[in-house]
Amino acid sequence: MAMDPDAVAKAFVEHYYRTFDTNRAALVSLYQDTSMLTFEGQKLQGPAAIAGKLGSLPFQHCEHQIITVDCQPSGPQGGMLVFVSGSIRTAPEEHPMKFSQAFHLMPAGNSFYVQNDMFRLNYG
Amino acid sequence: MAMDPDAVAKAFVEHYYRTFDTNRAALVSLYQDTSMLTFEGQKLQGPAAIAGKLGSLPFQHCEHQIITVDCQPSGPQGGMLVFVSGSIRTAPEEHPMKFSQAFHLMPAGNSFYVQNDMFRLNYG
Repeated sequence: MAMDPDAVAKAFVEHYYRTFDTNRAALVSLYQDTSMLTFEGQKLQGPAAIAGKLGSLPFQHCEHQIITVDCQPSGPQGGMLVFVSGSIRTAPEEHPMKFSQAFHLMPAGNSFYVQNDMFRLNYG
Repeated sequence: MAMDPDAVAKAFVEHYYRTFDTNRAALVSLYQDTSMLTFEGQKLQGPAAIAGKLGSLPFQHCEHQIITVDCQPSGPQGGMLVFVSGSIRTAPEEHPMKFSQAFHLMPAGNSFYVQNDMFRLNYG
């Protein structure tokens, strides 16, 4: 089945941040053993370590707003790079913070998993 | 020769932005025919189109300041993802603008070329 890369990227991004904001622990299913997350410079590998880091972030509730989504095919293996900018509001903070995040999605059956994930806050 | 990925990423980033700020036209040598640039949402492919876009940006002088550089191996083909945040000051503007940029470097002999390049300004 041919897929429009931009539509796949948009669907992934909507799914990822909706899951982050409503059921953060479920993000674990998007990562595999070789997956890597660099979160504000801290490097983690594998679903358990990555989900542990995301689960330990010091806020219970958050809300992502997406500003831009760019995507490109990453090479002959069928991967896709997704580059996001947006803002995150974490309760009880009133003001959102800007962030940028880059994902490298790799095909897994009919879907994709996150091979690479790099997150940075963009301080103003 | 084994290379430290973080050192390679840092060297690439320093080279890229120094070249951008001092001899922008020379960036063309970092791209190959399959290379893609998405610049503020505009998609370009190949060295000529990419260098043409970078050369047409509406400022003669600019100065990049790098804030963060993250890198991860992208997969078994020996590629490397490099994720940069920083600021750019373009003459005659006084105030720098924040940006984020994601590169996917692929090996080419003893060096790397830029397979993927995505750039976004982060408006405050």
